Amino acid sequence: MKLADLPTPCLVLDRTILLRNIGSMARALSRHRVPLRPHMKTAKSIDVARLATAGQPGGITVSTLAEAEYFSAHGIADILYAVGITPQKLDQVAKLNAAGAAIIVITDDPDAASAIAAHKRPPRVLIEIDSGEGRGGVPPDDDVLLEIAARLGPSLAGVMTHAGHSYAGRSIDDMARIAEAERAAVVRAAERLREAGHDSPIVSMGSSPTALHADSLNGISEVRAGVYMFGDLFQAEIGTHDLDSIALTVLTSVIGRRRGRLLVDAGGLALSKDHSTEAAPKDYGYGLVLDSAGRRAFGDTIVQRAYQEHGVIEPAPGQQLDLPVGGKLRIAPNHTCMTAAAHDRYYVVEGGDDIVAVWTRVNGW
Amino acid sequence: MKLADLPTPCLVLDRTILLRNIGSMARALSRHRVPLRPHMKTAKSIDVARLATAGQPGGITVSTLAEAEYFSAHGIADILYAVGITPQKLDQVAKLNAAGAAIIVITDDPDAASAIAAHKRPPRVLIEIDSGEGRGGVPPDDDVLLEIAARLGPSLAGVMTHAGHSYAGRSIDDMARIAEAERAAVVRAAERLREAGHDSPIVSMGSSPTALHADSLNGISEVRAGVYMFGDLFQAEIGTHDLDSIALTVLTSVIGRRRGRLLVDAGGLALSKDHSTEAAPKDYGYGLVLDSAGRRAFGDTIVQRAYQEHGVIEPAPGQQLDLPVGGKLRIAPNHTCMTAAAHDRYYVVEGGDDIVAVWTRVNGW
Repeated sequence: MKLADLPTPCLVLDRTILLRNIGSMARALSRHRVPLRPHMKTAKSIDVARLATAGQPGGITVSTLAEAEYFSAHGIADILYAVGITPQKLDQVAKLNAAGAAIIVITDDPDAASAIAAHKRPPRVLIEIDSGEGRGGVPPDDDVLLEIAARLGPSLAGVMTHAGHSYAGRSIDDMARIAEAERAAVVRAAERLREAGHDSPIVSMGSSPTALHADSLNGISEVRAGVYMFGDLFQAEIGTHDLDSIALTVLTSVIGRRRGRLLVDAGGLALSKDHSTEAAPKDYGYGLVLDSAGRRAFGDTIVQRAYQEHGVIEPAPGQQLDLPVGGKLRIAPNHTCMTAAAHDRYYVVEGGDDIVAVWTRVNGW
Repeated sequence: MKLADLPTPCLVLDRTILLRNIGSMARALSRHRVPLRPHMKTAKSIDVARLATAGQPGGITVSTLAEAEYFSAHGIADILYAVGITPQKLDQVAKLNAAGAAIIVITDDPDAASAIAAHKRPPRVLIEIDSGEGRGGVPPDDDVLLEIAARLGPSLAGVMTHAGHSYAGRSIDDMARIAEAERAAVVRAAERLREAGHDSPIVSMGSSPTALHADSLNGISEVRAGVYMFGDLFQAEIGTHDLDSIALTVLTSVIGRRRGRLLVDAGGLALSKDHSTEAAPKDYGYGLVLDSAGRRAFGDTIVQRAYQEHGVIEPAPGQQLDLPVGGKLRIAPNHTCMTAAAHDRYYVVEGGDDIVAVWTRVNGW
C-alpha cells in the first residue's frame, strides 16, 4: 500500500523520525543514568510502546484505565496511571492487577488515600506533588503530604510530579530552570516522607521539555515523558525538538478550491480544535501545511479555520497550492496528543510513501 | 444501572430533552410543509437517527463515509454525504450503493464533476452552492454552476447549500435574514439549472438556526439540520434553543480539590478543545458545570482550563462546590458535535438517574 491509496483523513506516522526522537530522549536521560517510564497518552499504541521502552526497564505511564487495560493485555505489567484516582475506579484497577498487571495509581487527597487503604486489594500509590504548575498535587512542604502518607500506610510507593508549566517556557534555560524546580520539589517530598519513616522507592518526575533539558536528576528514580515521541508544532516552538522532527502528520485530500484557497477533508475532528500555538511565538492555526511527502513545500501556509470535517487553507504570501480536488497534503499538528485522539490507527511510513505497517490505538476511557 | 455507576468521563444523553428538541424542529418545518433530512454528524447513532427521522421521509445527511456505511448497514438507504467528494472516494460510495444504499454526494468543482461522470457507477450528485458563508460552494450566479451541471450530465440531482454563517447571527432577526439569503441562493441556482434544461428535484438547505427561524422555505425541497437534536451552549447563545434544552452532557468525577478549586476527569479529550463560546456574548470556557442531576446548581461556574485528561473548575463568585474526590458533576458542552466525538457511546436517561439504554456511535472516517 502507498500513501496515495490511503483513505483520508488519516494519521501518517514516520517510523524513522519516531525512532530518532526516541533515541534523543534515551541519550538525554542516559547522561543522568535515570530510566524512562514513557508516557503512552500520546501514542496509545503497543507498537510504539515497544519502541519507547526498548533499553528501558519496561514500565510505562498511562492517562486512562482503557490504556491500562490495553497495555496490560499486551504484556506490559508495570503501569503508572498518572491521573488522580477516584474510589470508584479502584475496583477496575484491582481487577486488572489480579489478572497480572501492576498498576500504580496517584492521589493528592487524604480522603482518597483512606479509600485506597480500605480497599480489599489496594494498589501501590504515589503521592502527587505540585512542583509549580498548580494543577494537581500537594506542595512538598505541606503537612498534608505526611497525612496522606500515613493514611496510605503500606500502599505508599513514592512520589511523582509533572512540571506542566514547562509548556510556558520558551528557551533551553527556562526548561533547565523549571526542570530543577520539578526535581527539587519531588525530591524534597521524598525526603520528608523518609524522615517521617516512610519508604519512597519511586521518585518520578517529567514532561518532555524538562526530561530533555534537566541539568541534574539527582534523587530521581524515573522520568516520564510522552509527546517527545511524535513531537508537534508547539513542542518545536518550546525547544523540545526542531520542526523536522514531527513524526506524526494528518494526510488529507483537497475537497474544494476557489481563488487559490483550498478546502481539505481534515477539519476540527481530524486535526482537533487545539490551538495551543496561539499563545506561542508563532501561531500555526490548526496545523502547518506540508506536501504529500511531508516536506515544508508551502512556507508558512497553515490551516486557518477548522470546521467539523472541513479545513480551510489560505496560501501564505508568495505561496501557491496548485492541487486538484483529490490532491493530497499532510498537516503537521499543533498538539499531537489531541490530534491523534480522533483516529483509530497509524499508517506507518519510513520516510517514503510505502505503508510499512498499520498500528492501532486505544481511544476512549 | 444508575448514573452513579457509570465510568467517567462519559456522555449522558437525556432522551426527554432530545425528543423535545426533535419535536420543536419538526413543528418549525411543518409550518412550511418542508421535510427534514436530519444531519447525523452530531449524533452518529442509529438510535438517534430513528427518532430524528420519525414522521419525515427517512433520508439523512452524514459527514463521513464511515457514517454512510454504518447507517446504510442499519437500513437507512437515502443518505446525503454533505462534504465535497473526491474522485478517490467514489469507489467506496459505489460499493455501498451496489449493496443497497442510495448515497448522494456533493461537489462544487468541474474536474470532480467530470471524474464522477466518468466513474463506472456514478452516484447522484448535488452541486454545492455558496449562500454567503464563503466556505465551499459556487455562487448561484456563477457560470461554473452550469459547467458543473453539464459535466455531471444525468448524475445531477439538484443543489444544496449550508448557511454556516448563521453561527455568526445573534438574534432571531439575524437568523431569519440569513435563512432567506440561504433559501434565495439555492433556489436561484435551481432555477438557473432548470432554465438551462437540467432537472433539479433536490433543493436542499439548512443549518439548525436557519431551519428553525426561516420565514419562508418556498422552493426548498428539504432542510438539513443536526445540532438542534442535542443542543449546546453555543446554540443556546445564538437562539436555537434555551439553556434547559441541552440534551447531552459529560458526566465527570472530581479527581482533586484544593482551596475550593476542583480538578475533574473530563479534560480536553472528553470535552473537546472547542472554545466556540469565546466569540459569543458569554464565554463558557470548556463547558458549564451542572450538578450530577444536570441542574444548574452552581451559577456560571465553568470548566476554565482543559488539559488532556484534566478539567479545572474554579467556582463562580459566590458559588461553592463542596464535593469529595469521586463526587460527580455534569458538564454542558460548548459544541456538542466536537464533544461527542471522543466517546463511543451514550448512556441514556429520561430526566432521572436510571440508565434506560446505551446507544453506540460511529466515529472516525
